[in-house]
Amino acid sequence: MAENKIYRASTTAPVNIAVIKYWGKRDPHLNLPTNSSLSVTLSQSDLRTHTTASCSPTYPPAEGDTLLLNSHPQSLSTPRSLACLTSLRSLRRSLESANPSLPPLSSYPLHIISTNNFPTAAGLASSAAGFAALVRAIADLYTLPQSPEELSLIARQGSGSACRSLLGGYVAWDAGHKGDGSDSRARLVAPRSHWPEMRAMILVASAMKKDVSSTSGMQATVATSSLFRTRAEVVVPREMAAMEKAIEGRDFEGFGKIAMRESNSFHACCLDTEPPIRYLNDVSWAAMQLVQGVNEKVGRVVAAYTFDAGPNCVVYFLEGDRREVVGCLAGCLKEGLVERVEGGVELEDGLEGAKEVLRRGVSNVIMTGVGEGPVSVEDHLIDEKGEEVQKNGV
Amino acid sequence: MAENKIYRASTTAPVNIAVIKYWGKRDPHLNLPTNSSLSVTLSQSDLRTHTTASCSPTYPPAEGDTLLLNSHPQSLSTPRSLACLTSLRSLRRSLESANPSLPPLSSYPLHIISTNNFPTAAGLASSAAGFAALVRAIADLYTLPQSPEELSLIARQGSGSACRSLLGGYVAWDAGHKGDGSDSRARLVAPRSHWPEMRAMILVASAMKKDVSSTSGMQATVATSSLFRTRAEVVVPREMAAMEKAIEGRDFEGFGKIAMRESNSFHACCLDTEPPIRYLNDVSWAAMQLVQGVNEKVGRVVAAYTFDAGPNCVVYFLEGDRREVVGCLAGCLKEGLVERVEGGVELEDGLEGAKEVLRRGVSNVIMTGVGEGPVSVEDHLIDEKGEEVQKNGV
Repeated sequence: MAENKIYRASTTAPVNIAVIKYWGKRDPHLNLPTNSSLSVTLSQSDLRTHTTASCSPTYPPAEGDTLLLNSHPQSLSTPRSLACLTSLRSLRRSLESANPSLPPLSSYPLHIISTNNFPTAAGLASSAAGFAALVRAIADLYTLPQSPEELSLIARQGSGSACRSLLGGYVAWDAGHKGDGSDSRARLVAPRSHWPEMRAMILVASAMKKDVSSTSGMQATVATSSLFRTRAEVVVPREMAAMEKAIEGRDFEGFGKIAMRESNSFHACCLDTEPPIRYLNDVSWAAMQLVQGVNEKVGRVVAAYTFDAGPNCVVYFLEGDRREVVGCLAGCLKEGLVERVEGGVELEDGLEGAKEVLRRGVSNVIMTGVGEGPVSVEDHLIDEKGEEVQKNGV
Repeated sequence: MAENKIYRASTTAPVNIAVIKYWGKRDPHLNLPTNSSLSVTLSQSDLRTHTTASCSPTYPPAEGDTLLLNSHPQSLSTPRSLACLTSLRSLRRSLESANPSLPPLSSYPLHIISTNNFPTAAGLASSAAGFAALVRAIADLYTLPQSPEELSLIARQGSGSACRSLLGGYVAWDAGHKGDGSDSRARLVAPRSHWPEMRAMILVASAMKKDVSSTSGMQATVATSSLFRTRAEVVVPREMAAMEKAIEGRDFEGFGKIAMRESNSFHACCLDTEPPIRYLNDVSWAAMQLVQGVNEKVGRVVAAYTFDAGPNCVVYFLEGDRREVVGCLAGCLKEGLVERVEGGVELEDGLEGAKEVLRRGVSNVIMTGVGEGPVSVEDHLIDEKGEEVQKNGV
């Protein structure tokens, strides 16, 4: 056994953008949600967290576990991170007890390095990808036999929506009923291959850190909104069932209508919070109007907007409707943000104001689509000596 | 009996701004609401409709009833106007039947002239004041003995919220339960004299005609919002009771909190409509933030925002808190819009952005307060020959 060995495992993990929103915890300690949610996992070619987990007997015990996120040291002693690390170590310890020839990795300090290729905390689900990558990388380092669904129970404790980023394609997070949260986990609704034509165009209206964090915002909603209970208990269960059916039948019209009214319902409950929470700004509303305008002009739902806890608009559409959707929306954006597509529909004159707001307000566009779950990679961010790998030009 | 006589009666009628909102009809034909509402009648020194109703055997029958609103001819043959005129004529006819010496005014064409001293259909409750003035003026012309509450049944059929403008002070509109609407009428919660210190500062963010009319908007909400039923059946009844108690006890803290969350609840249901309805723009949100900022800084609720179906912010406050409220908000507005008051609180630095949005977005400010109901006036807009009175400089 090499006593100086640096043990390493690396993974990339995807962002997911919910079409049935997670908002509200029934148990803030265990990150148990008031309602189920459902998301599309996005391609890691475009948005990903890349994480290397390493451990070694040579790492100084006094420093404890460490995490560098985009080159900045982050605490791993928050309750959420501790919950993940403790669970993963405990699973590793079981393996070690059953097989004493295994190196005692659970007793070594962990050094973790993580990089996002997109701005942190800008409503782009960075914490989801981050915790999914963290859990997946450590599980790989520890050679844990647990399935992604089982690991999702652990990632959930780091960041609720992270549990959905452990799977690719179309993923539900079932709220569950048990007090210990053991049934509150990710479930595959359909793999990417079932409906690979799903595309997402992300209109970045602001890459600034948001005013109201999801964690504090959602608990304010639970505590003060009079409409929220109806949403959690009546509206979302109905929409979840309908959305699963739409995905099963590859019915974009159904998918899109539900996604849009779900986004509206979530933001309505934010507005019904005391004091009210606002994520949708003038740019967001302009995007909503233009998506509606495209659908009206085409005569069916070819594009669907959804907004997480931020002003950025995610527009879902099918590859077959690229010409209509991107052709039209690209014409409402600053030159050069997205490759022009010929043949988009002409929007009604009444939308000139919305076009102008979008043109001025959208600073960046990310074109992506449905993708796979976390992937093991050999591209380590920590070298064989336990040092951060210096990459040029990144 | 003077056969050429022009019979005239003139009234002014007030605007009212609801603190428990009317949104949704259970019977669109009779204008019966899904929920009760409650408003403050505003002073006619600042906002009013001035209406002269006249009738005469000399008016050409072929022309029928006519209405000039702000010098523009308006139809009186809409179902809503017809409902009012038919009811009022029928009440007059009963008087004439009982007393044949009365001139048969009910058989003469009506000529009505009406002027608002504020922009029409800009979310400033112009239709409320308009129909209240129309009904009150014709009732006076016909010397009807009905009480304002009884007349409110008629005004309601013209424009729902008009029923509340027939009374001064603090006025409820009870939704009622009967199918014929005979219990859906205005009720005095408290006269102006009970709590005369109530002030309203109206921040006019736009005097443009609104995109989505209240009438079509509210029925879209009833038809498509999943959260609306909870609002109408659970939230509003609770808030109505609490608001009446707050007014009874002259409890501004209670009044303000309920008013703000009621406004939020209403606009949340607009956002939950399919497609979503938006009345709150960036300027509205800036006003909300600044009102919250004042309250936080002062340490109690001294100002309360509310928004009707438009972006204009109505800020209620008590005369005793003028220094804090106006002193502070005036500093966030363009020079000259409102008289400066010394000694407003200093807002937190974080609100600089909101101040700038308000400074750029508010074009006009109306300072007013709680006021009386319609008032009979001798200032007629129609002269003794039945012609429009030409006023210079108006």
